[in-house]
Amino acid sequence: MAEELILLSSEYSLFAERVKIAFAEKGITNYQVRNEDLSNKSPLLLQMNPVHKLVPVLIHNGKPICESMIIVQYIDDFWNHKSPLLPSDPYQRAHARFWADYIDKKIYPIGRMLWRSKGEIMEASRKDLIQSLKTLNSELGEKAYFNGESFGYIDLALIPFYNVFYTFESLGNFSMEVECPQLVEWAKRCSQKETVSKSIWDKRKFYEMSLRFKAKLSLE
Amino acid sequence: MAEELILLSSEYSLFAERVKIAFAEKGITNYQVRNEDLSNKSPLLLQMNPVHKLVPVLIHNGKPICESMIIVQYIDDFWNHKSPLLPSDPYQRAHARFWADYIDKKIYPIGRMLWRSKGEIMEASRKDLIQSLKTLNSELGEKAYFNGESFGYIDLALIPFYNVFYTFESLGNFSMEVECPQLVEWAKRCSQKETVSKSIWDKRKFYEMSLRFKAKLSLE
Repeated sequence: MAEELILLSSEYSLFAERVKIAFAEKGITNYQVRNEDLSNKSPLLLQMNPVHKLVPVLIHNGKPICESMIIVQYIDDFWNHKSPLLPSDPYQRAHARFWADYIDKKIYPIGRMLWRSKGEIMEASRKDLIQSLKTLNSELGEKAYFNGESFGYIDLALIPFYNVFYTFESLGNFSMEVECPQLVEWAKRCSQKETVSKSIWDKRKFYEMSLRFKAKLSLE
Repeated sequence: MAEELILLSSEYSLFAERVKIAFAEKGITNYQVRNEDLSNKSPLLLQMNPVHKLVPVLIHNGKPICESMIIVQYIDDFWNHKSPLLPSDPYQRAHARFWADYIDKKIYPIGRMLWRSKGEIMEASRKDLIQSLKTLNSELGEKAYFNGESFGYIDLALIPFYNVFYTFESLGNFSMEVECPQLVEWAKRCSQKETVSKSIWDKRKFYEMSLRFKAKLSLE
């Protein structure tokens, strides 16, 4: 049966980039992307993700899968014959899930707080964010990728934030090169992979967009 | 090889109860529980979970696995020959992961906010919590368990909060029977299973403990 694959995304969704990378790693190109206007969500999005009403949503033969890393695991489970994203060893799988969870719990929420806040809260967010990035930098260490020699689940979870490194540095007034040199090298390495470069935004464009949004929300 | 299994827990850890239920479902009893004093964490806990410094941690032949639902998935991956916790179908697996994630994102953080807050924030938390519990109630509907006829991953993720239903009702001044009747029946059904009843606390004891802690934190 031909698979019908629709990815509900938005123009700037970092989380949808994870799904695009997962598809690219699996060699799946026959999916349709529909960018939502998040200020005027489509009836399809509201029907397919009534609980969170957020993108990304993958609709596979009419059935919705929501939440980016759950979609990535679904893709890995469904197309399990090619390019595994999670390792097969149970301990290594748990390790990969732990760090992907860390990224979701720390990088996005703290980065968002840095972007939205001012004064003391902004300063606390800045410190928290640098600490979290340094934790990731230590975990990576001298390895080429988080799981060793090949690109995998943790890399996929984190690399869309490469777009945001420049924004983090600019808003937080710190240097990723100084604080997290291995992470910067890793990000360059990942972004040279076609599966990644075709799936993620340009970091300067992302920065300009984030400033526009910040101004629009009267956060300046 | 004999497996060495140590579960770092604490006396009141709802999240460790998930791990205990998973072990019980798999028929694994040869693990040792070490209850931590969370006001004076052991060097072993700090060594095994340096990132979050939280329980539960499962130490399997010296190697740590952290975060309750990641431990549960590890148990399901490692002892995969008996009583699967996650369904085998990729879509059903994604569905199970989605609702377990919903429970982690909503029930615990909102319940904690209800417990810690006063005035307007408490009232907003109360409304949020009732809405989230109603969403779970609708998802359960008339099914015996979340995945259908047998106890599984979503049930395991939620049932430790049965202990907290009474605390939620008392602090939030609402009736679970009125708001979420199916969920109350489901909780009774689950708690009649030996794998659950042996692994979870008594709900009144939990309420008394939560009031003691609230008083101690001068939140009254």
